[in-house]
Amino acid sequence: MSENFGERMARAMRQKRSVAVIGLDPVREQLPPELAAAAAGGPEAAGRALGEFCLGIIGAVAELVPAVKPNIAFFEALGEPGLRAYNETCRAARAAGLLVIGDLKRGDIGSTAAAYAKGHFAPDGAGFGPHDALTINPYLGSDSLAPFIKAARAVGGGLFVLVKTSNPSSSELQDLVLRDGGTVAEAAARLVARLGATEAEFSDVGAVVGATHPQELANYRALMPQAPLLVPGYGAQGGTAFDVVGAFRGDGLGALVNASRSVIYAWSQAGAPADWRQAARQAAERMNADLNQALAAAGKKR
Amino acid sequence: MSENFGERMARAMRQKRSVAVIGLDPVREQLPPELAAAAAGGPEAAGRALGEFCLGIIGAVAELVPAVKPNIAFFEALGEPGLRAYNETCRAARAAGLLVIGDLKRGDIGSTAAAYAKGHFAPDGAGFGPHDALTINPYLGSDSLAPFIKAARAVGGGLFVLVKTSNPSSSELQDLVLRDGGTVAEAAARLVARLGATEAEFSDVGAVVGATHPQELANYRALMPQAPLLVPGYGAQGGTAFDVVGAFRGDGLGALVNASRSVIYAWSQAGAPADWRQAARQAAERMNADLNQALAAAGKKR
Repeated sequence: MSENFGERMARAMRQKRSVAVIGLDPVREQLPPELAAAAAGGPEAAGRALGEFCLGIIGAVAELVPAVKPNIAFFEALGEPGLRAYNETCRAARAAGLLVIGDLKRGDIGSTAAAYAKGHFAPDGAGFGPHDALTINPYLGSDSLAPFIKAARAVGGGLFVLVKTSNPSSSELQDLVLRDGGTVAEAAARLVARLGATEAEFSDVGAVVGATHPQELANYRALMPQAPLLVPGYGAQGGTAFDVVGAFRGDGLGALVNASRSVIYAWSQAGAPADWRQAARQAAERMNADLNQALAAAGKKR
Repeated sequence: MSENFGERMARAMRQKRSVAVIGLDPVREQLPPELAAAAAGGPEAAGRALGEFCLGIIGAVAELVPAVKPNIAFFEALGEPGLRAYNETCRAARAAGLLVIGDLKRGDIGSTAAAYAKGHFAPDGAGFGPHDALTINPYLGSDSLAPFIKAARAVGGGLFVLVKTSNPSSSELQDLVLRDGGTVAEAAARLVARLGATEAEFSDVGAVVGATHPQELANYRALMPQAPLLVPGYGAQGGTAFDVVGAFRGDGLGALVNASRSVIYAWSQAGAPADWRQAARQAAERMNADLNQALAAAGKKR
């Protein structure tokens, strides 16, 4: 049997000696000065500038990290030219040997989920991507997730199901306590574990778990022992390397920690190199060192 | 103060004497024979065929119903050519005097939700749409909904937040019972009521509530007294007109009942007119009569 997504992710993490994923969240108004001027010239020009920015970041970090995570929202904001830049970004990331995690957070009932899955895991290069994994939303339950899982498996891909997100109001529904004990997010975690159960070491059905409470991450790790975890909240959102070690297995595998703004906009920070690509590269190197050190200190060595 | 979305929806329902919304869920392999052949010729040809199909349905039903609901998943399935057809569909629907409910089910944290909202409520005609309302997912809580609400209000638009969906596995998270009583879906309904509270008769923050349990709908109606409701599940999904009356206020307003496949693919049913547009028109007329009769029988007269 060929490698599943969780196994591919583990292999890429070992090869790059990195647990980091760089989130590509390009905002037209926040591009480096040399691109911002071009981006002001209408949607077509803005789309091209977004693509150029993402390709520059990919070139800067490709040797350092196993994966990138373009968030399609920032491309959809520009309409069709934005989505052309999205596809260009995904193609460039794959060509650079990176896993491409499409941050889409889609979710709909069965037949409609199948249409989304077709568009984003197209085996023939049609649709959007290419993607190695997608983020999806669990609110509609397992029959809304199954078509994504089926389509992912057909291309050796995987999924990260939103379980516990890193935003403040994630508490409003996800932290509600159930009559039978546990929270809504924990129920979602059990659903993920059930849908992803496999005889392999890692599953292809993973989860997004926010990094705001360190103990919580260890709890989700235990609830979903085989699931690859995608951990947002590091960097600009305030999480530290110490906060995220709970997401990892004892061998330092099983999770990717995402940083977006703190890396891609590193050029705008005090003391950063003037070149935005070089600044991103430095920030990714710092992030790797920071995370690897925290994992080693916790005895989670790869 | 100008009319909000809920008020616009009520006015359109009165004008058309209809509580129906037609869901545009075009599947390439299920198009009428005259379009299916063209659609087989690659993504560009398929996109054009999808657009032609939706424009035909819009022409057939525009006089009969207040709104259409294109589901973007079926267009995303074809990649960029599909989204060109999506925009063409939305423009045609607005030109025909219909409210356009973009069935997107998006949801992400604050800054990312703002990017989605920008792309789908673009005041300048850029991005996707035009849309009068969008469906969105509540799993991430109010800070993920607020940017959509702000963007909707800037263009007089509205939102339908997923509260209780019509698919079988919606029960897995939405029906979980909380320690303090009530279900997750009811907690989502209270969130909708809070975010949409207004001094106007109707709110611009509505909800999606599935039609599988008639009593449930009356409960959601009471929990969200001002919210426009979008009720899927009628027709191909098995709900009857009797099942949905609970979603309406005493005056027969406050809800739109959706049918997709049973109307747009009516041509494929036994005894239907050979022309697919004519078949859709007949199906929409039957749906109107069926729903208006059930509402009248329940004493909910407009």
